[in-house]
Amino acid sequence: MLDKLFNPDVVAVIGASRTEGKVGHAVLKNLLEGSARKIIPVNPKVTEILGLKCYADILDVPEKVDLAVIVIPAASVPLTLEKCGQAGISYVIVISAGFKEASLEGARLEREIIAIAEKYGIRMVGPNCLGIIDTSSSLNASFAASMAHAGNIAMMSQSGAICTVTLDWADRIGVGFSKFISLGNKADLAENDFLELLKTDDSTAVIAAYLEGVKDGPRFMDVAREVTRRKPVIVVKSGRTAVGSRAVSSHTGTLAGSDAAYNAAFRQSGVIRANSLEEMLDYSRAFSTYPLPHGKKVAILTNAGGLGILTADACYSTGLAITSFEDVTIAKLRERLPEAAGLYNPVDLLGDASAQLYEYALEILLDDPNVDGIIAIVSPQAMTDVPAIAQVLVDTIQKSEKPILCNLAGGTRITTGEKLLNRHGIPNYPSAERAVASMKALCDYSSIKIKEHTNSVVMAVQREVAQKIINDAIASGRRTLGLESIGLLKAYGIPVVQSRMAGSLSEAIQVCEEIGYPVVMKIISPDISHKTDVGGIKLNLRNAEDVERAYFTMMSDVKHYMPNAQITGVQVQQMITGGKEVIIGMDRDPQFGPLLMFGLGGTYVEFLKDVSFAIAPINDKEAQHMISSIKTYPLIAGVRGETPSDIKAITDTLLKVSQLVMDFPQLMEFEINPLMVMPEGKGCLAMDIRMTLRKE
Amino acid sequence: MLDKLFNPDVVAVIGASRTEGKVGHAVLKNLLEGSARKIIPVNPKVTEILGLKCYADILDVPEKVDLAVIVIPAASVPLTLEKCGQAGISYVIVISAGFKEASLEGARLEREIIAIAEKYGIRMVGPNCLGIIDTSSSLNASFAASMAHAGNIAMMSQSGAICTVTLDWADRIGVGFSKFISLGNKADLAENDFLELLKTDDSTAVIAAYLEGVKDGPRFMDVAREVTRRKPVIVVKSGRTAVGSRAVSSHTGTLAGSDAAYNAAFRQSGVIRANSLEEMLDYSRAFSTYPLPHGKKVAILTNAGGLGILTADACYSTGLAITSFEDVTIAKLRERLPEAAGLYNPVDLLGDASAQLYEYALEILLDDPNVDGIIAIVSPQAMTDVPAIAQVLVDTIQKSEKPILCNLAGGTRITTGEKLLNRHGIPNYPSAERAVASMKALCDYSSIKIKEHTNSVVMAVQREVAQKIINDAIASGRRTLGLESIGLLKAYGIPVVQSRMAGSLSEAIQVCEEIGYPVVMKIISPDISHKTDVGGIKLNLRNAEDVERAYFTMMSDVKHYMPNAQITGVQVQQMITGGKEVIIGMDRDPQFGPLLMFGLGGTYVEFLKDVSFAIAPINDKEAQHMISSIKTYPLIAGVRGETPSDIKAITDTLLKVSQLVMDFPQLMEFEINPLMVMPEGKGCLAMDIRMTLRKE
Repeated sequence: MLDKLFNPDVVAVIGASRTEGKVGHAVLKNLLEGSARKIIPVNPKVTEILGLKCYADILDVPEKVDLAVIVIPAASVPLTLEKCGQAGISYVIVISAGFKEASLEGARLEREIIAIAEKYGIRMVGPNCLGIIDTSSSLNASFAASMAHAGNIAMMSQSGAICTVTLDWADRIGVGFSKFISLGNKADLAENDFLELLKTDDSTAVIAAYLEGVKDGPRFMDVAREVTRRKPVIVVKSGRTAVGSRAVSSHTGTLAGSDAAYNAAFRQSGVIRANSLEEMLDYSRAFSTYPLPHGKKVAILTNAGGLGILTADACYSTGLAITSFEDVTIAKLRERLPEAAGLYNPVDLLGDASAQLYEYALEILLDDPNVDGIIAIVSPQAMTDVPAIAQVLVDTIQKSEKPILCNLAGGTRITTGEKLLNRHGIPNYPSAERAVASMKALCDYSSIKIKEHTNSVVMAVQREVAQKIINDAIASGRRTLGLESIGLLKAYGIPVVQSRMAGSLSEAIQVCEEIGYPVVMKIISPDISHKTDVGGIKLNLRNAEDVERAYFTMMSDVKHYMPNAQITGVQVQQMITGGKEVIIGMDRDPQFGPLLMFGLGGTYVEFLKDVSFAIAPINDKEAQHMISSIKTYPLIAGVRGETPSDIKAITDTLLKVSQLVMDFPQLMEFEINPLMVMPEGKGCLAMDIRMTLRKE
Repeated sequence: MLDKLFNPDVVAVIGASRTEGKVGHAVLKNLLEGSARKIIPVNPKVTEILGLKCYADILDVPEKVDLAVIVIPAASVPLTLEKCGQAGISYVIVISAGFKEASLEGARLEREIIAIAEKYGIRMVGPNCLGIIDTSSSLNASFAASMAHAGNIAMMSQSGAICTVTLDWADRIGVGFSKFISLGNKADLAENDFLELLKTDDSTAVIAAYLEGVKDGPRFMDVAREVTRRKPVIVVKSGRTAVGSRAVSSHTGTLAGSDAAYNAAFRQSGVIRANSLEEMLDYSRAFSTYPLPHGKKVAILTNAGGLGILTADACYSTGLAITSFEDVTIAKLRERLPEAAGLYNPVDLLGDASAQLYEYALEILLDDPNVDGIIAIVSPQAMTDVPAIAQVLVDTIQKSEKPILCNLAGGTRITTGEKLLNRHGIPNYPSAERAVASMKALCDYSSIKIKEHTNSVVMAVQREVAQKIINDAIASGRRTLGLESIGLLKAYGIPVVQSRMAGSLSEAIQVCEEIGYPVVMKIISPDISHKTDVGGIKLNLRNAEDVERAYFTMMSDVKHYMPNAQITGVQVQQMITGGKEVIIGMDRDPQFGPLLMFGLGGTYVEFLKDVSFAIAPINDKEAQHMISSIKTYPLIAGVRGETPSDIKAITDTLLKVSQLVMDFPQLMEFEINPLMVMPEGKGCLAMDIRMTLRKE
């Protein structure tokens, strides 16, 4: 797949130029500096460039071209692409800018070239990109300032400038890449296609990406789930915020999803989210270099006590365990370390530690089964031979089956040691905190990789009944539905509170007598979403008299707060006590679809934002994760000997809601609030629901 | 103060050595490389070192010595220090290690030298330190590998290795210092003394420190409060995770950990806490270079859209405002920027932006009153002249009254530009995130500096009454007190719930009749801290029959859960409804003393850790800050038109508790839990208290 894109035999550069400094020149030159392959410049104004015969038109080229790189003004791209199609070219990279990122006219041009590419089955990179680089096939089909060094990191970026910055950064410290892909506007080929390719690319051990959005959320999750079983995927996703998102839409016109959906999608598909380019590159280098740790028990080795403490702080903050050593480890350390040395974790070799002492301590620590990985810190004290210690680190790392992340701390006096590490492909983390964060990423991926993938359970439901309820609502022209549509839950086997509607006071009293006191009474109105705010909920009504009083107060309050609200009646429910209120919701994310939410009910949800998210469909593992990952989980799990709430019933309801929102894409928003969860074994009851249907 | 320590006329090096590589040699050499001052080696084994006459004994030196640097084995230090005293030397730096950091014998030696220094009035730096450097007096009384560059950052560190690392880092990028102080074991002179000195040191604009603890918490706060009004103080405090050996039984103690007191103390005294050395140095360089911004409205200027979005994300995450420009700004930008450029924030000059365009945009942005500061990003695109843009940045920064923080992003191709910035004392932040964090630090200090300092209010209290209650408790040998000592609150004017003790059921019923139903009944036992856990609280008892049933159930439950608990009776209280439960606590921190805690009551405090801390004594501003800084504040401030709780009453109670715990240092732990807060204007009521007295 995409083989001839990354390793073409014949490449045409359409818009090749003789003028240095022009993109059409840079691309040609970069291509010529790669492996011996046929490179063909196309430009009607000249007959020869850089010693190559130049053709006036791509249709004039006699050879079968595998890849065409297009570097001409946007307005001319459609015609040229049409010709590429006629010439039977399978792959095209459109470097030219001036498409949807630039203007409405550009967006129209982009739609045009998409249609042409589809017509001819051309696979296209870009437009508005830097090009691609493949170090294993020695292809540089880009206008990057220089060729990437070879390495096992594949990088893709939705921003050409970030490609440039990353290549320049990598050049300074000698980091190598397998493939380097500038995604541009992703008119055709996008992250999903390249992820799929990189999954089986032997030269790639780790995949890094800068993304401003994903083109197809559900497919991204499917592909990423597969890829992350084999190799780590680290993504910086920008546009986290309202403000950031605005910048995105003005930048490449990508519709940025909400951040919660991205976080959930990444977590569910095993993608590691980095918070900055620095983190992405730090993590990538760790994965590029080290074996995965088997656990998160870390040993800290240092020649500076203060730096050891700071490292321990960082481990603690990130959730790594500062391991305890076996007795034999401590005994062996005691044999050779000076008297004042720290033998426990952090191991402090003291300021005059030699390279030999580092070597000795590293070997002992690696032998300890309680050590999953080591953070090695070297500070340039008076007697410190930094290059010699760096050499010990290189030698030990190269034969170790556990990761040893290094922090040579300082400036001038560590330069030589740092370069020595880099020359062997080993990163030097400039601070203990960054070494620790990268160790954490290794550990995280280690548990992602071994995570069992279970499939969704399909629950027995009455889909037709639900379908009818939704059809009826749509037919009636209503978009927002409340308790009156509770039949939807029943159809999906979700237990609901006994509840009836009443159009008048007398009807309400009659219903109450049937349900049995005490009851709860709620206003029904298509215009009122937060019933409590307008006095639209009355609790614990114990008899007809209570109901009458409540009815009149409610009507008068609601009229007062929302004089124009249309009131269709009241809902009478059995009053449930002894349960805990939780909330289950769904919002349809533009990128990933149904985003499920779970949290504790009541005012706390709102102010503490203590909720968890997942993209549907979910399986039971995922549902349990949603429940247990809120901070207030102990309150439902049972604190201080309290009976736990019925967590199985919540899990079950989450799975049913997941299925419901998958079955009916018409459901745009959906919320069971509250779901009353009874003690363990006693189930749960949906007390109220609210949903919005898609505008047809 | 300490003048002759940092600018001595005559310095003796006791333990000076001829052997290169020895600390006693390095110190002497470093001293000689400084200003022309008299340097006198002391060593009984030689008569001349580096061309200087060497004395056998400090008492043989004919001149009046201002400063003695001691570099001899620890065991010999006491005798030598004694001689320094006899010679009338005022300042001593003990570089030698082997004191309390090393062994019990070392700790004894350290106590000995403290006593000697006190006897002679010698002020001492160290022991176990690297020494000190003063670039304005050109003094290098340390064994650092090289002299620090001159600059306006004063740095002190409790770790010698971190001094070395910082100097070496600074050497590579050319960062300068005014004073550099290795604190060592702080046997005599400590951070407080140097803070006081640096407060009025004209060569110092910013103070950075690495601390593992403070010597005198309350004095630190007093001094820091004064210093931070004049110049910023940035501290990395390590040992976040250290778990105290002291058993903690109160909520306050459990929730606080070791770090909460430091956080509170730093915040209250205006100290900026950095989370890593990297942050400390990043912030220090920002303060060293830039004027303070007047607000937190930031403009982002970039030639790379993607980096602009990432910067906007970082601004949003840290709480900086991405400003909106005035119309005239946008109009002016439109005049010269290319059509596809981003004119709104972030301003995207596009990839081919020239130095002239940067200059133009910077000037326009600086002119906008809605811009308090700028983050300027430069990525090395194909046409980018990085050095020319760096020169524009230098020129603009040098004349600007607003901070412009730079991120030249990349590696090889930004090196020249980066060096140009550094040569002019301007930091290049290697990532947008670090530039943004430093901008945030500038903004934070800007508001710290203008913060009004108000004094504590002294409330009218009956101190003698409280004293008697405490004395009685101490006399009775009891350390843990509960509701029975509620008189303490009354003495300090804190309203308490009507409450009485009863030793038997019949007495309980009698008390209930007096208080009036409904009531709450609680077990009283010195052995039971969490009454709910053992069925020791019964609510809403409406008549004698309820009380009787509750009494028997309670006794049987308590016996069941804690068969050995000594039960002294029950507490009967009026049942209060309609209020909100909050908790006010105090735990005595070993460094800073009384650490006050505030939070919402109930189970939520425990699982959400949504509490705030402050060191007593506090004033009303501080009390209000404690209340409003918890996440659940909206729940007491009143949500959705709910009546707010009586926040004035909480403030008042916090101030009274502050005064109480200051007045009685015997109170080790103290907790009002719950304090029932009624709606605005209706006050609050302490429902239960619990306190622990100091073991005599």
